[in-house]
Amino acid sequence: MNSAVNPSCLLYGPFDARFEDRPLPEINDPNDVIVKIAYTGVCGSDVHFWLHGGIRAFVSETHPLTMGHEASGVIHKVGSAVTSLAPGDKVAIEPGYPCRRCGPCKSGRYNLCPEMKFAAAPPKVHGTLTKYFLLPADFCYKIPDTLSLTEAVLIEPLAVAVHTVRLADIKPGHRVIVYGAGTVGLLCAAVAREFGASQVISVDILESKLSFARKFIGESIGRTAMPDRSLSAEDNANLLVQNLNLGEGANIAIDASGAEASMQAAIYVLRRGGTYVQAGMGKRKIEFPIAEMCEKEITAKGCFRYGPGDFDLAIHLATSKLRLSEFVTKIVPFEQAPEAWETTKRGEGIKTLIKGPE
Amino acid sequence: MNSAVNPSCLLYGPFDARFEDRPLPEINDPNDVIVKIAYTGVCGSDVHFWLHGGIRAFVSETHPLTMGHEASGVIHKVGSAVTSLAPGDKVAIEPGYPCRRCGPCKSGRYNLCPEMKFAAAPPKVHGTLTKYFLLPADFCYKIPDTLSLTEAVLIEPLAVAVHTVRLADIKPGHRVIVYGAGTVGLLCAAVAREFGASQVISVDILESKLSFARKFIGESIGRTAMPDRSLSAEDNANLLVQNLNLGEGANIAIDASGAEASMQAAIYVLRRGGTYVQAGMGKRKIEFPIAEMCEKEITAKGCFRYGPGDFDLAIHLATSKLRLSEFVTKIVPFEQAPEAWETTKRGEGIKTLIKGPE
Amino acid sequence: MNSAVNPSCLLYGPFDARFEDRPLPEINDPNDVIVKIAYTGVCGSDVHFWLHGGIRAFVSETHPLTMGHEASGVIHKVGSAVTSLAPGDKVAIEPGYPCRRCGPCKSGRYNLCPEMKFAAAPPKVHGTLTKYFLLPADFCYKIPDTLSLTEAVLIEPLAVAVHTVRLADIKPGHRVIVYGAGTVGLLCAAVAREFGASQVISVDILESKLSFARKFIGESIGRTAMPDRSLSAEDNANLLVQNLNLGEGANIAIDASGAEASMQAAIYVLRRGGTYVQAGMGKRKIEFPIAEMCEKEITAKGCFRYGPGDFDLAIHLATSKLRLSEFVTKIVPFEQAPEAWETTKRGEGIKTLIKGPE
Amino acid sequence: MNSAVNPSCLLYGPFDARFEDRPLPEINDPNDVIVKIAYTGVCGSDVHFWLHGGIRAFVSETHPLTMGHEASGVIHKVGSAVTSLAPGDKVAIEPGYPCRRCGPCKSGRYNLCPEMKFAAAPPKVHGTLTKYFLLPADFCYKIPDTLSLTEAVLIEPLAVAVHTVRLADIKPGHRVIVYGAGTVGLLCAAVAREFGASQVISVDILESKLSFARKFIGESIGRTAMPDRSLSAEDNANLLVQNLNLGEGANIAIDASGAEASMQAAIYVLRRGGTYVQAGMGKRKIEFPIAEMCEKEITAKGCFRYGPGDFDLAIHLATSKLRLSEFVTKIVPFEQAPEAWETTKRGEGIKTLIKGPE
Repeated sequence: MNSAVNPSCLLYGPFDARFEDRPLPEINDPNDVIVKIAYTGVCGSDVHFWLHGGIRAFVSETHPLTMGHEASGVIHKVGSAVTSLAPGDKVAIEPGYPCRRCGPCKSGRYNLCPEMKFAAAPPKVHGTLTKYFLLPADFCYKIPDTLSLTEAVLIEPLAVAVHTVRLADIKPGHRVIVYGAGTVGLLCAAVAREFGASQVISVDILESKLSFARKFIGESIGRTAMPDRSLSAEDNANLLVQNLNLGEGANIAIDASGAEASMQAAIYVLRRGGTYVQAGMGKRKIEFPIAEMCEKEITAKGCFRYGPGDFDLAIHLATSKLRLSEFVTKIVPFEQAPEAWETTKRGEGIKTLIKGPE
Repeated sequence: MNSAVNPSCLLYGPFDARFEDRPLPEINDPNDVIVKIAYTGVCGSDVHFWLHGGIRAFVSETHPLTMGHEASGVIHKVGSAVTSLAPGDKVAIEPGYPCRRCGPCKSGRYNLCPEMKFAAAPPKVHGTLTKYFLLPADFCYKIPDTLSLTEAVLIEPLAVAVHTVRLADIKPGHRVIVYGAGTVGLLCAAVAREFGASQVISVDILESKLSFARKFIGESIGRTAMPDRSLSAEDNANLLVQNLNLGEGANIAIDASGAEASMQAAIYVLRRGGTYVQAGMGKRKIEFPIAEMCEKEITAKGCFRYGPGDFDLAIHLATSKLRLSEFVTKIVPFEQAPEAWETTKRGEGIKTLIKGPE
Repeated sequence: MNSAVNPSCLLYGPFDARFEDRPLPEINDPNDVIVKIAYTGVCGSDVHFWLHGGIRAFVSETHPLTMGHEASGVIHKVGSAVTSLAPGDKVAIEPGYPCRRCGPCKSGRYNLCPEMKFAAAPPKVHGTLTKYFLLPADFCYKIPDTLSLTEAVLIEPLAVAVHTVRLADIKPGHRVIVYGAGTVGLLCAAVAREFGASQVISVDILESKLSFARKFIGESIGRTAMPDRSLSAEDNANLLVQNLNLGEGANIAIDASGAEASMQAAIYVLRRGGTYVQAGMGKRKIEFPIAEMCEKEITAKGCFRYGPGDFDLAIHLATSKLRLSEFVTKIVPFEQAPEAWETTKRGEGIKTLIKGPE
Repeated sequence: MNSAVNPSCLLYGPFDARFEDRPLPEINDPNDVIVKIAYTGVCGSDVHFWLHGGIRAFVSETHPLTMGHEASGVIHKVGSAVTSLAPGDKVAIEPGYPCRRCGPCKSGRYNLCPEMKFAAAPPKVHGTLTKYFLLPADFCYKIPDTLSLTEAVLIEPLAVAVHTVRLADIKPGHRVIVYGAGTVGLLCAAVAREFGASQVISVDILESKLSFARKFIGESIGRTAMPDRSLSAEDNANLLVQNLNLGEGANIAIDASGAEASMQAAIYVLRRGGTYVQAGMGKRKIEFPIAEMCEKEITAKGCFRYGPGDFDLAIHLATSKLRLSEFVTKIVPFEQAPEAWETTKRGEGIKTLIKGPE
């Protein structure tokens, strides 16, 4: 691949990743830029792709796809109308851009655009495990010098957390439960703290994750709890309320675990009038305590990616309030991308990065 | 019972209703009033009480309870501080009053008050199947002369519909699906129309109810559909979207049926960013399409009774826009209250009333 | 001008309009369309342009500008990516399109885009008093057969009214005062009614306008009032509350008159917690009852043009609820455009249209 | 006064304060409590009373009034229904309680209750410059041991700031300007920081106040600016935007100065779509840049006292985030109350307290 123009890592099917040269992208729209990718992060959905060849839509021998959607890089070239960026600028990448013309786009919810072009989405849109990646300038976010290109990869999951917390409408003084202490759960907890939550309780089944959470969120506001798997979701929720003196219950519950028992507990743990946001994906259907939701007049919200301003706020928080460097536990060379997916599959560390091709 | 002071109908257990005399209520708080009950309506929860002796909390031989919570009447006596009402005024009754001092009460959600005193709620609060009923003046709503005391009974379910539609945040131009064409479903559909919905689609499994719905909502805005019980909730929803040209789906879906298949279909029938409100009660847990809720970033809301301003708006709509008289299909004498519950159980007519004691 | 390619009416300065040929617009963006203009309406700002050569920014001998921004037409040609429109379609025109890339655009408030290209805005953007007008397809709204091309001109001011009423957040049961019964004021009153206002009171100083308002809004909901110019704004507001039995005051007050006394009265006429929206433009600074605004905790909102969905809802209302044809009181040929401005200046009729060039 | 039952300081007119004995309040409502006042703070309105005998409503020889409304104390006695408080508890006092029965009360805006009983409000409601003060238990807020009774006096102005910032809807990442660096202005700035503002700029005409602000808000987020009184409000605003690199302008502007020039500058300093909240009272009418408000579609809000949850959040913030002790610059004995008003009138220090009678 030494002489390759645009070395890329494509998935052809489960466990079938191939390194290939792809053509250099061309700037046709004067508002586009080309980024030389520095790092791509691995998230749970990448592992699902690696194991199954996709989620709902799948790659194939005839429609392979460049993997990767959490990424940072350096501006390589800018279109003639771009004034906000210049070659050499370090950027975090928002890996999906919308049509800008439909109802959702114009009314401030572009994440719901039916024409969204999202990185590494079968069958069409190639991802960031490549050398040169083309996207619109306004979906590239210049990062300050105090943020490294490895930390900048975390801006994407942090934007997920920002979007989640905004949907949850967390306000100062709220008591917040976050189910799951993986990357997104931890970042949701941290963002909840920055939105003024007076108490943020991380729930997970692994003590190692809870221990990291306590350090990351800080003792004055952060609390942790491990559910008792021999109890029902309702009993676990009641126990949590009792043990942590939550009175009538939490104001806000976020599930970032994708586990059915957590989604159920999220409803039981809330006080009347509380809000539950589902941030992580798991089974398509679950058993859901609908009568409890009614009697407490709970609002439940699905959460999908990120929207206007989420990356901006993520960068502000990453720069001024959070230490994202602690999340990066392993970096593998570009040519060993599958090893990164295997590492994540084994649940090792927090966030594994894949270095971009030289 | 001719010489009874305050003849009342109490439930002692399933199928065990007894007519007894109870003491005349006394006005201790100068803001209270006593209403001479004119009519009490029967709703599904009354039938559940009649069959099972309660819902979650139950009556007993030692704690019987006066039944009834949908009611109209005439002011009999007012406390010394009451200026808004006078003896002889015809009123609709909001049958639950809150503590006025807790967090939910003070922040505008008194329906979530943990100290709520709701009529016919075991084990403590007696209901409206009595001659004289005491409550605070501000939970009695004077009705205009153009509204009869039989129609006024419908103000309570209409307030349920107002609360539901307000939670759903229906706006002009919205396309709305209402599952269930019983009393609450029909009233939700009518209120949705008054909130400016451009199309209101009633879904039910009985053609007789759909036929009534078409007449009640009117042809310019109202539509109806009967689901195919051999199809899945998802397929029924997709068929509905297709048959009624709903494009990306409905903006708002309300379930007033309490049927699991309807609650599921409500999620599938929505467009991205849509809102689903659960107005009717059924099973405590259902199978719920949570991934669909996430991918479309849907907001789901539980709905519980009614809150500030709901009765006021209900009376305004009843006076100016709706013909509630069409709902009253049977009136039984006080002494035959159980026959009213049996009528409702058999699904006969729309709303059965029980006349108050002379 | 018979052989002209694109006959247009340009303003070079106060009272200096010239008819010229301009080049045919070219479709460079595949999402654009060319509309053959049918009619252009005249609004107050056109008269201001005619008299003063602009508002804040001005035309000049070296930078003349094609006038006109309220318009309807027929699709002449569509770009290669356009699927929603075809030549021959009748359309209403939203005469300003935004950059789609800035913060306001992406967060659902494109009317606040700093790069907005708005028709007839000096020094750059030409207007609709021309034969062929180019704009993006998604700013052209296909109208149904039941709406004529003369009525379709009114969709623009109706969208202003929709935007105003949405900002005011009018809800069913609200009592609404609209100051000014010109085109925008009348349409605000009508839209307020469609949003469920229980009472809509139009205030103007001309009985002829109030008389039209009563007919247009309808007697069941519409009321009118003429202020007493010998009284203060506060006294006029108090009198209005008293005469119309508004109790604690109106929920919503909209000023569509631009008159200082009306803007002041709008604050006094509101109940505590009420909302005032300023829809019309007048003096840049006014004397404002700020203490009254504080003591009643009033929300005041500036209103600027229209945003996402406003034209869609305007067309829905125009088709199903309003009779816009009554507004068109005069139509002048293209070559007599200045006469249309003079007619409007003299306050004759309601809406004067200028026919597009053949 | 040694043998006095309930020594109190009453105002009979301008400069006419008299110390008198008043009867011990009696608990008639079982939900009421009696507080032995520890300290009463002085605010600008007290000085206005001292100089003019009232604001809008006035005391008189026949209707003198006990002064004081910012206060802390210790529970002396509780009504029979009170479970949340016990004699000996240290409390902050919310000095106005509403009727709990009107529309505003029930819909979550009790500060707009027309029947509000607010301390030291002519002609009826006595204030806190007394030994024993009666109020409902739910308007007394137990403070933690870490908060002193002198600091607790500041909870009232802090609740004003909380209410202001909530109305302003400050969100993480917002850039906020606060005009005025007196007690309320400083607390607004601090609360804005706790709501996540990325930059909070305090504007005042006294360098001493700005210097205190810099220390109190902290250098990472706090900025200060002094306007140039030789410039117009618009020019000062533009200069501020330029000097502090605010780009399109601030998201939020709060005026806590009551100065006309500041209220005007607040509109000019905002970006499009920004929000301005008026927290301080000054002249009843000002010259207001209404066209600027329209063109930028600004929301302006009046702010009146505090509502549900404001004291709770104030106590949370005072306990965990702010150092209120720095505000208390002088404490005078009860018998020297007028000296406290004179101190405040002379602009000395920040907050002067009056010790309650022994």
